[in-house]
Amino acid sequence: MRSPSSIITFLSDFGTQDYFVGAVKGEILKINPEAKIVDIGHDLVPFDIEGAAYLLESYYENFPPGTIHLVVVDPNVSGRDPVILVGSDYFFVGPDNGIFDPILIRLKPARYRINITGPISNTFHGRDLFGPVAARLSLGISPSELGILAPREVREREGPPRIIHIDRFGNLITNLRRDKGKIGIKGRIIPIVSSYLDVERGELLAIVGSSGRIEIACREGNAQEILKVVKGDEIEYLEG
Amino acid sequence: MRSPSSIITFLSDFGTQDYFVGAVKGEILKINPEAKIVDIGHDLVPFDIEGAAYLLESYYENFPPGTIHLVVVDPNVSGRDPVILVGSDYFFVGPDNGIFDPILIRLKPARYRINITGPISNTFHGRDLFGPVAARLSLGISPSELGILAPREVREREGPPRIIHIDRFGNLITNLRRDKGKIGIKGRIIPIVSSYLDVERGELLAIVGSSGRIEIACREGNAQEILKVVKGDEIEYLEG
Amino acid sequence: MRSPSSIITFLSDFGTQDYFVGAVKGEILKINPEAKIVDIGHDLVPFDIEGAAYLLESYYENFPPGTIHLVVVDPNVSGRDPVILVGSDYFFVGPDNGIFDPILIRLKPARYRINITGPISNTFHGRDLFGPVAARLSLGISPSELGILAPREVREREGPPRIIHIDRFGNLITNLRRDKGKIGIKGRIIPIVSSYLDVERGELLAIVGSSGRIEIACREGNAQEILKVVKGDEIEYLEG
Repeated sequence: MRSPSSIITFLSDFGTQDYFVGAVKGEILKINPEAKIVDIGHDLVPFDIEGAAYLLESYYENFPPGTIHLVVVDPNVSGRDPVILVGSDYFFVGPDNGIFDPILIRLKPARYRINITGPISNTFHGRDLFGPVAARLSLGISPSELGILAPREVREREGPPRIIHIDRFGNLITNLRRDKGKIGIKGRIIPIVSSYLDVERGELLAIVGSSGRIEIACREGNAQEILKVVKGDEIEYLEG
Repeated sequence: MRSPSSIITFLSDFGTQDYFVGAVKGEILKINPEAKIVDIGHDLVPFDIEGAAYLLESYYENFPPGTIHLVVVDPNVSGRDPVILVGSDYFFVGPDNGIFDPILIRLKPARYRINITGPISNTFHGRDLFGPVAARLSLGISPSELGILAPREVREREGPPRIIHIDRFGNLITNLRRDKGKIGIKGRIIPIVSSYLDVERGELLAIVGSSGRIEIACREGNAQEILKVVKGDEIEYLEG
Repeated sequence: MRSPSSIITFLSDFGTQDYFVGAVKGEILKINPEAKIVDIGHDLVPFDIEGAAYLLESYYENFPPGTIHLVVVDPNVSGRDPVILVGSDYFFVGPDNGIFDPILIRLKPARYRINITGPISNTFHGRDLFGPVAARLSLGISPSELGILAPREVREREGPPRIIHIDRFGNLITNLRRDKGKIGIKGRIIPIVSSYLDVERGELLAIVGSSGRIEIACREGNAQEILKVVKGDEIEYLEG
């Protein structure tokens, strides 16, 4: 198990027209002025837990070992545990409401339920709880001083096959983990291929993305514009 | 009075599709390569002085003492003073056009009119003036070397009760500072309560926000969507 | 020729709703945890090569000598060279697809074609190639260890006079480099003037912008709203 570094990445759905992002960064720097806060992005669709989980899974390993990943997407402040997850190389801080499910499955990290002491607001745990906890980790304070070890069963809650994220270039990321067969979507049947070059320009394809999930794309085109789908739309998996 | 730190926060309405934000950051780093520039956000509604004032008031205290807060929202480059404000714990740099009014009222800071020497552009004071002044402060140069002490009367210019900001989650921030009574808006009467739990799910409420202003919200819902209001809409205050 | 500093600016069209920006930053910090990554912006119109070229030209000199400018706007990953450009004061890393044309013309930098060794993905050169190369430069590794000197003819490819960028305030940046005459646009004739004050409030004007290109603006107004033009619209240049 690594020691935490002073690098804290920060992903949220706070937007950039409000003071929320600033308030969290300030509270981190109040505790550790040497912390290196790295913005991942704050324009996630509000409350998009599945999207946050997918993004985190896609970037966390790009950072140096020791990095602390702070994720605050928290539609329902009550009804979930505030946690620190400790993997062999990375640390994660945020609400345990599904955003960390891929991490729990992949890394089987130690899980600490954050031990809240003192008064905090009911609504802004990013500023009052998660940011400060990430900052304390970056100072070298042990997770066991900040929380109580509390393992739990990981729920596999994939749900029906569907689109969980649409990226800027119109690629449709699904929750399906398969490497062959076909995808049915909007009355079309799309083959799972191993390279963009397996289809003609302008044709749709399905391919295993970097997170191991099937993505639907269009060679040199925009799959979303062609299919007119939205996040959450269900799809069909067809054998063979 | 604190010494300034090397932390410079940066709020603007420059957007993120242009070179404006980059140019300001560059000029800061040219003067102090060790400066730690912290983006608050640059997607403020263009020229939104009231919104900038509200945001600054909401995040400045979250930062460590010594922080320099740079705010550039400047619809009318002539007709206002470029200033440094020096409170007991924080420094503020920008145009004195209303964005600092809550700070002037709350902190009663020393106010320095920036002493412009040398040629600067007529249009881009963020790059040519405010960024460089913030950078010089962060190097330890005294405010009195950068400007002339010029106290002024603080205008209380609240104007009629109205919505001054709508946040990402649909909460309506008003310019009203009251802690009881009712708010009239769009033909509805909304009580000022002390907790979200004082109303049923899906009901509207008014509550004192972190900046001391009344906010209109909906318990587990979106007040803006329900009320169909826009920034600037007037509201009514009702006693009792 | 300067040594590179640890400042790496970062401009892209990756947006801020995806993991792309985070992945690039992470790979940079994996190689050089001391790198100082400065976001210029990631909300450029997707694939907008001309816009990226214009922005880079507008901010690069604001940064301290030694700065490494990373630009990733890369609609067609094949069919262009990955390059390092070395000017007397600045370093540039990215795809040589037109985004660096103004730099090639203005600075006549040494041009290194990046020497790719090892496997990289077909689609995400920002993460797999450009970010890591910028990080290695920031560690002091010589451009000649990362690429092969490969000078080329600079193509002047201005094309017909047209609007190449529209900024947040509705100013229309063109590809025209003239300092007198008139601009024809949407049936109107607009004079090239030397100051906003040469026209009345609310009137249109054309003026030489900071990058040496003609910009069409409206004194105290929004030229785009008046003219209803879009990026790419052609204009006419009229002598005298």
